Amino acid sequence: MYGTIRFEQNPHCKTIPGPDESLGFGRYFTDHMFMMDYEEGQGWLDPRIIPYGPLSHDPAAMVFHYGQAVFEGLKAFRTNKEDIVLFRPDQNAKRLNRSCERLSMPSLDEDFVVQAIQSLVRVDANWVPRKEGSSLYIRPFVISTEAGLGVRASSRYSFIIIMSPVGAYYEEGLQPVNILVEGHFARAVQGGTGNAKVAGNYAASLNAQAIAKENNCAQVLWLDAVEKKYLEEVGSMNVFFKINGEIITPSLSGSILEGITRKSIIHLLKDWGLPVKEQKISIDDIVEAYKNGTLEEAFGTGTAAVVSPIGSLLWQGTPMVINQGHIGELVHRLYDTITGIQFGRIEDTHSWLVTC
Amino acid sequence: MYGTIRFEQNPHCKTIPGPDESLGFGRYFTDHMFMMDYEEGQGWLDPRIIPYGPLSHDPAAMVFHYGQAVFEGLKAFRTNKEDIVLFRPDQNAKRLNRSCERLSMPSLDEDFVVQAIQSLVRVDANWVPRKEGSSLYIRPFVISTEAGLGVRASSRYSFIIIMSPVGAYYEEGLQPVNILVEGHFARAVQGGTGNAKVAGNYAASLNAQAIAKENNCAQVLWLDAVEKKYLEEVGSMNVFFKINGEIITPSLSGSILEGITRKSIIHLLKDWGLPVKEQKISIDDIVEAYKNGTLEEAFGTGTAAVVSPIGSLLWQGTPMVINQGHIGELVHRLYDTITGIQFGRIEDTHSWLVTC
Ligand SMILES: Cc1ncc(COP(=O)(O)O)c(C=O)c1O
Ligand SMILES: Cc1ncc(COP(=O)(O)O)c(C=O)c1O
Repeated sequence: MYGTIRFEQNPHCKTIPGPDESLGFGRYFTDHMFMMDYEEGQGWLDPRIIPYGPLSHDPAAMVFHYGQAVFEGLKAFRTNKEDIVLFRPDQNAKRLNRSCERLSMPSLDEDFVVQAIQSLVRVDANWVPRKEGSSLYIRPFVISTEAGLGVRASSRYSFIIIMSPVGAYYEEGLQPVNILVEGHFARAVQGGTGNAKVAGNYAASLNAQAIAKENNCAQVLWLDAVEKKYLEEVGSMNVFFKINGEIITPSLSGSILEGITRKSIIHLLKDWGLPVKEQKISIDDIVEAYKNGTLEEAFGTGTAAVVSPIGSLLWQGTPMVINQGHIGELVHRLYDTITGIQFGRIEDTHSWLVTC
Repeated sequence: MYGTIRFEQNPHCKTIPGPDESLGFGRYFTDHMFMMDYEEGQGWLDPRIIPYGPLSHDPAAMVFHYGQAVFEGLKAFRTNKEDIVLFRPDQNAKRLNRSCERLSMPSLDEDFVVQAIQSLVRVDANWVPRKEGSSLYIRPFVISTEAGLGVRASSRYSFIIIMSPVGAYYEEGLQPVNILVEGHFARAVQGGTGNAKVAGNYAASLNAQAIAKENNCAQVLWLDAVEKKYLEEVGSMNVFFKINGEIITPSLSGSILEGITRKSIIHLLKDWGLPVKEQKISIDDIVEAYKNGTLEEAFGTGTAAVVSPIGSLLWQGTPMVINQGHIGELVHRLYDTITGIQFGRIEDTHSWLVTC
């Protein structure tokens, strides 16, 4: 597929941040990147691993004007056996294609995408951190590059993979976060792009995100754009609740991103005999459960944090404190299980890991 | 504001396309571009007119990932007195700021934006075509440039203006177009970004646009995303109807772009004693008017075409032919008046023109 990956060694490798440096998220980048171009009529061309460095585009390149840009996010982990593994990269490749389709962008061979990621990780394997909880964040993305101002699908694209070592999301163990339930701005609507991982969705969310920050909240919990009533997702996480012993999560309505962590958690819970109900959940349901004391746990799920316990939900000016702000049992078990699989402490019975 | 505009002459000027060359739209670019950068804490810096040429960005530049990108579109015309004029550029500067605000991007001094456009047009004045109906299309845009993968507003931006000579939209006079009424995909929703000119809106529209093309339609007429019932706008145009002698256009609902051509047309019609009703218009209203023979005219309005007569609307598989596919009187009068003002044949009584 697309030919062999050409390799060009970076002659000026950077110093890899040491184990005591605070990595943050997406601040350091490795020495190489993967790149491949698409030309209408020819398909994807010239796959290559080259030194990490600037991209050059005509100022009329369509990505700057009409926003054809999609991305993925996944991680490589160094296990306790010194293997380097990816968590369900096939799912990211699939979702990347769904995102491309939504924005009229060409699809990619999914196996090849995984191979490209593996090859790049192998080249920069020394960048996969050793510190417990740290990992190498991998960012595949596709952008339109044709120079032209007509509103239409571009005839040229680049598929690029860059990588960044990232610290543990919770430096001091799991921490509950405050979340603002957003009633004014909309993230997505049925028929829109909410179920695709497209750049424009994130730009559209920044205003609400800023309001959340002003209210001492880490993220926004979005309501559906039509009735302003049904829960959708949290910032860049899906959301789960435990109410009266039952675990529920918003069903995939067409405006929610189908998270790979969400999918994995649903799978694990089923294994454990704790089936998750995927259904419409209104904010009124949550308020009611809160009031009658059956709102036991709430948490977000996503690649960055795995799970993120919600300590309180701010809705119409009033905070609903969940589980007295303590971290629930379920969140703990899920966190320990998924990170356990990722770092090799727990057997990977679902074959979710792919070795690099 | 922001200091004087530095000028760097392009040592390799291109050959300007001759009067007989087909210019198309946004295919040729002039010799220079305007550029200015923003740094958090310092504001907008180093305004400059430099040779048109590639932009260089880190692959982690936020515009590629989180879609903070907004733009404007306006034209410079060469009048019959050999002046070069802009049509209401202050309105574009205002709208640019509204778009920036929606995506948490820094604002620009509006007078300075107009001055920057004027300066750039003066430098590349020879590129303003002489052929009747041709003009110089001007594309100001702002993109986020900080390298980083956290989802947040960028701390760095570039404001860039590029220009492209464009041919007459109607090479052989006004031509009616077929339009597909889109019932599945959504362009925008209240609380979203539909009333801002942001890149992501256009990427989201391409799928529906492709379906329109397959159905021999030039563009999509969007319905509101909530009830899938109320008309919004057409591709990159606002839409007007004449029904039983009355002129109506969808009111600004929060999900429609406020077109400058729309605004100007509303103004002209009022001058002429033909007030426009801005109201909710459902597709059922249109079907009814069509059936009882009162749907007299329909047209799109926008910078590119000024006005674009709609020959037929394809709704649920059935075309509604308007005015027997002929161009209405109103469309003609509006087209002649606005282009008359732009090219200096009709007196600019509203002070819409700004000389470069
Ligand atoms: C909008 C949105 N929702 C949910 C998620 C969670 O998806 P995943 O579990 O695949 O990381 C993400 C992050 O990727 C996201 O950006
Ligand atoms: C979505 C959309 N609607 C309407 C318009 C018409 O606006 P204007 O008349 O300012 O060109 C445009 C074009 O700018 C547009 O992109």
